[in-house]
Amino acid sequence: MEEIKMRRSVRNYLDNAVEEEKIIQLLESGRLAPSGSNTQPWRFIVVKSKESKEKLAEVSNQQKWMVSAPVFIVCVADIRSRIKEEVAIEVDENSAEEEVKQIIRDTSIAITQMMLEAVNLGLATCWVAWFTQKEIRPILHIPADKYVVGILTLGYAAENPAARPRKPLEEIVRYERW
Amino acid sequence: MEEIKMRRSVRNYLDNAVEEEKIIQLLESGRLAPSGSNTQPWRFIVVKSKESKEKLAEVSNQQKWMVSAPVFIVCVADIRSRIKEEVAIEVDENSAEEEVKQIIRDTSIAITQMMLEAVNLGLATCWVAWFTQKEIRPILHIPADKYVVGILTLGYAAENPAARPRKPLEEIVRYERW
Repeated sequence: MEEIKMRRSVRNYLDNAVEEEKIIQLLESGRLAPSGSNTQPWRFIVVKSKESKEKLAEVSNQQKWMVSAPVFIVCVADIRSRIKEEVAIEVDENSAEEEVKQIIRDTSIAITQMMLEAVNLGLATCWVAWFTQKEIRPILHIPADKYVVGILTLGYAAENPAARPRKPLEEIVRYERW
Repeated sequence: MEEIKMRRSVRNYLDNAVEEEKIIQLLESGRLAPSGSNTQPWRFIVVKSKESKEKLAEVSNQQKWMVSAPVFIVCVADIRSRIKEEVAIEVDENSAEEEVKQIIRDTSIAITQMMLEAVNLGLATCWVAWFTQKEIRPILHIPADKYVVGILTLGYAAENPAARPRKPLEEIVRYERW
């Protein structure tokens, strides 16, 4: 609960690099996530190159603040974890297949575990998803049968934003039926 | 990390009821989740009635073990958090709209936070998603513009399953590009 309460979306980072062992522990917390039929669709690309970070920020609606994060973890869902036939598949924001929903769900579990583990490690993140598959995939040579669920910017926080408001429990909880 | 490592999908529960204050703290951990543009699409239905639990287990491919859990938290994603126009919308496994992917993603964040908080509270869960929208929604009178992302069975564990295998980091992590 401590990590959940403390977590903020941080959009300004210190110059300090992130220790390799912390990056590994973070990836490990994603690796251990549960998934439907244990299919583990998540793939993570660790990006530190300034050039790639700038391109990724550019296609994320020019969110230039992103580049201040020393590390991006680009979180990709692989449809091949569920569709084994060797047929061409392209997935994007308008795909109708149930499998696309399943891999987005399961990859979101892994990203959430990393996001919370980052707090535990004294690090900060922001989950960015304001981009299109068409624009983001070519930057990192990601094939068309993979879906980028989010970029987790990662680093030491240079800001401490206040908690954003949430709907009260009464608005989101019902008992026994809708 | 402790909660992440300790978490198991538990399919056999003790008869003990779950304390009300623990259920509230669990819902609270879901309520605090981040979401795209802070849209908070998650809605939770707390179900304890034996009759409803039996029906929900029935449409979940007859997973009779589910009924041993004293509480189900039925986790629903509301498309109205993103589509404000008062037009009829029906969502299901084959919906193509990007908004359906977004609300599944964001509700999965909230469910993951509850799943991990349950471990912190000494409780166990299993995230069940083996049902169809068409069969599950009528049981709890859930309207057709909501998407049931999962049922979290909740209770005190009557089993302690071994950790299931995961792909090694080398298989799921890449550096700088795909």
